[in-house]
Amino acid sequence: MQADRILSIQSHVVFGYVGGKAAVFPLQCMGYDVDVVNTVNFSNHSGYGRSGGSKATAAELKSIFESMEQNELLLPSRLLTGYIPGAEALSAVQALAQKLKNSKPSLLYLLDPVMGDAGRLYVAPDVIPVYREMLPLASIITPNWFEVELLTDIKLRDIQSLQRALICLHKRYRVPDVVISSIPLTPWLRDALPKRIQPPSDNDHLLCLSSSLSGTESNLTQATPSIVHAQCVHLIPGYFSGVGDLFAALLLGHFHPNRPTPSEDSTPLSVAVSAALVKTHSLLQFTHEQSLQLPSEERQPSDDELDSANPLRKTRRMRGRELALIQGQDIIRGKDLDNTSPLKPWDDFWKSYIPNSVDKSPYVDLDALI
Amino acid sequence: MQADRILSIQSHVVFGYVGGKAAVFPLQCMGYDVDVVNTVNFSNHSGYGRSGGSKATAAELKSIFESMEQNELLLPSRLLTGYIPGAEALSAVQALAQKLKNSKPSLLYLLDPVMGDAGRLYVAPDVIPVYREMLPLASIITPNWFEVELLTDIKLRDIQSLQRALICLHKRYRVPDVVISSIPLTPWLRDALPKRIQPPSDNDHLLCLSSSLSGTESNLTQATPSIVHAQCVHLIPGYFSGVGDLFAALLLGHFHPNRPTPSEDSTPLSVAVSAALVKTHSLLQFTHEQSLQLPSEERQPSDDELDSANPLRKTRRMRGRELALIQGQDIIRGKDLDNTSPLKPWDDFWKSYIPNSVDKSPYVDLDALI
Repeated sequence: MQADRILSIQSHVVFGYVGGKAAVFPLQCMGYDVDVVNTVNFSNHSGYGRSGGSKATAAELKSIFESMEQNELLLPSRLLTGYIPGAEALSAVQALAQKLKNSKPSLLYLLDPVMGDAGRLYVAPDVIPVYREMLPLASIITPNWFEVELLTDIKLRDIQSLQRALICLHKRYRVPDVVISSIPLTPWLRDALPKRIQPPSDNDHLLCLSSSLSGTESNLTQATPSIVHAQCVHLIPGYFSGVGDLFAALLLGHFHPNRPTPSEDSTPLSVAVSAALVKTHSLLQFTHEQSLQLPSEERQPSDDELDSANPLRKTRRMRGRELALIQGQDIIRGKDLDNTSPLKPWDDFWKSYIPNSVDKSPYVDLDALI
Repeated sequence: MQADRILSIQSHVVFGYVGGKAAVFPLQCMGYDVDVVNTVNFSNHSGYGRSGGSKATAAELKSIFESMEQNELLLPSRLLTGYIPGAEALSAVQALAQKLKNSKPSLLYLLDPVMGDAGRLYVAPDVIPVYREMLPLASIITPNWFEVELLTDIKLRDIQSLQRALICLHKRYRVPDVVISSIPLTPWLRDALPKRIQPPSDNDHLLCLSSSLSGTESNLTQATPSIVHAQCVHLIPGYFSGVGDLFAALLLGHFHPNRPTPSEDSTPLSVAVSAALVKTHSLLQFTHEQSLQLPSEERQPSDDELDSANPLRKTRRMRGRELALIQGQDIIRGKDLDNTSPLKPWDDFWKSYIPNSVDKSPYVDLDALI
């Protein structure tokens, strides 16, 4: 059981499983030595309504990175970054990522550009340009729907805008592997999906999409700029925190760009996304089942009015929905896992795509695209 | 796999395995949900000679504890505390431990009074009285030889002083379970040992001793104030960091005071110490074997002169001796473990002990004892 060393830079909470608490244990179970930098030290995630603790300052992060460099401890072959509060701290991480990439060009960097969700920004807006600058350092990025819009400045409203956004990420920002998980199945998206990817019903499914240049360069053409895979995922009722952090960690842990893929119609990325997705979904399902056994006060549905009258109502609900990572750790180790539903190729994703002059240059001028 | 929830309060390092990095993953593997409070956030342990990062202030710790209380997240059934720098931060932890104990008297609290080793103090001296105040809150303590001396003010120089120190910890400080691991086998200690506990040779062994009031009250008398067990442990060459932190975590994880013990001559404490000891020793042996395969520059023996001429020489040695917790995680899960050498009862430990008047009171006056 000898594997790589991963440097993880993200939030820490004392109680519950988000940020590093959702990412580090799974990676350790998978056999990775994980170097753990805590960008914040909070009592719990923000969904509880209140939390204590503090953020690491940019100076504190730099002091850690400098000592690690002096002590020859910057040895990761993989880098994972998540929630980093504020542009100054993020710039410190950017400088470190650049240094690591310079000294080891094979570094696999999964950048999760944690900025917001569903139209709501939960970082300071000045982190957006820093994340854009960092994208060329990344091997894989895992933005959600809203974060794709923030990074590309392209509103995703039809298949053409989705194509333009992927082109922007792959060509302007030179990201070889892009994964957008949890896309709401709007009518235009559902209609664009190949029949074999479409779910039986719309409302209770999300789409997970991967778009890859890796290991597939020979198949790529002007008309097919990337290999796209997708899968619909059954939505589990209720909001769970830390799911994106867990998914990103599992994705990096399962990504092996130099291993042969099991079939011709898969890419190293689609294989890793499939594994991360089935484990994440199994853990969510397991958490959901565990939470059904909790006392009723821990299972109250979301209700802003009742919650504001009694803040502990919300707190208890949050507690009942913490990921059951520990009880479900056999899932992480891949025991008895259903591997029968890998991501499927979305063969005609680029069918309606018309390469234009700007796309012919390796680095597209974003302003010309949007 | 449903187990208890443990609140762990100790140091965090980015690289390597000491403090929380040595304790949390093993407990998670054993099925415990662990709430993790980081008392420092450093790049690496102090043995590397330099480290970056910062300590949590008492105010930051209090802010975390207060939010957890408000959010009803102070739910541990077990508490584990390790390195806490400075008396003010330690007092904040003391207040928390008192609060937890008040609200849940069955709380199992393993207090590792991390203060120093081999005659050298590595915390501020003003933590000593705070630790003494905290002892009555503890279920188990795991001081080393030197820390026993600091806590009891009794110099350990013969079997009588060892007896007096244990009496002081059990009676004055009301600690039901005391474990002193890694005691150097000085001639008086070796001579006092029953034959079946004595090792074949002195120099390469340490003694691990446990002294328990738990689950054994009926057997205790004035002449036999506690049940003592011991075992000699073969010393593995070289200095490894984090071993005490790992041992304390495994000990707490294996301690089940209400479960029947496998044999009449064991206590819940001796059973837990046996399990923790065999796992710790196996992991050390495994780490040692792994380190033998490192390049020679990572295996240079300690040499202060050469180290000071080339600080990286020391750094590389430290790196090569980080506990191989991840690669050896099957040991933590107890697979293929040799459980054939449990701690043995030291039946005549109290033979030479003469109860005096002060020992008859439940709380002994320390000054009268020493």
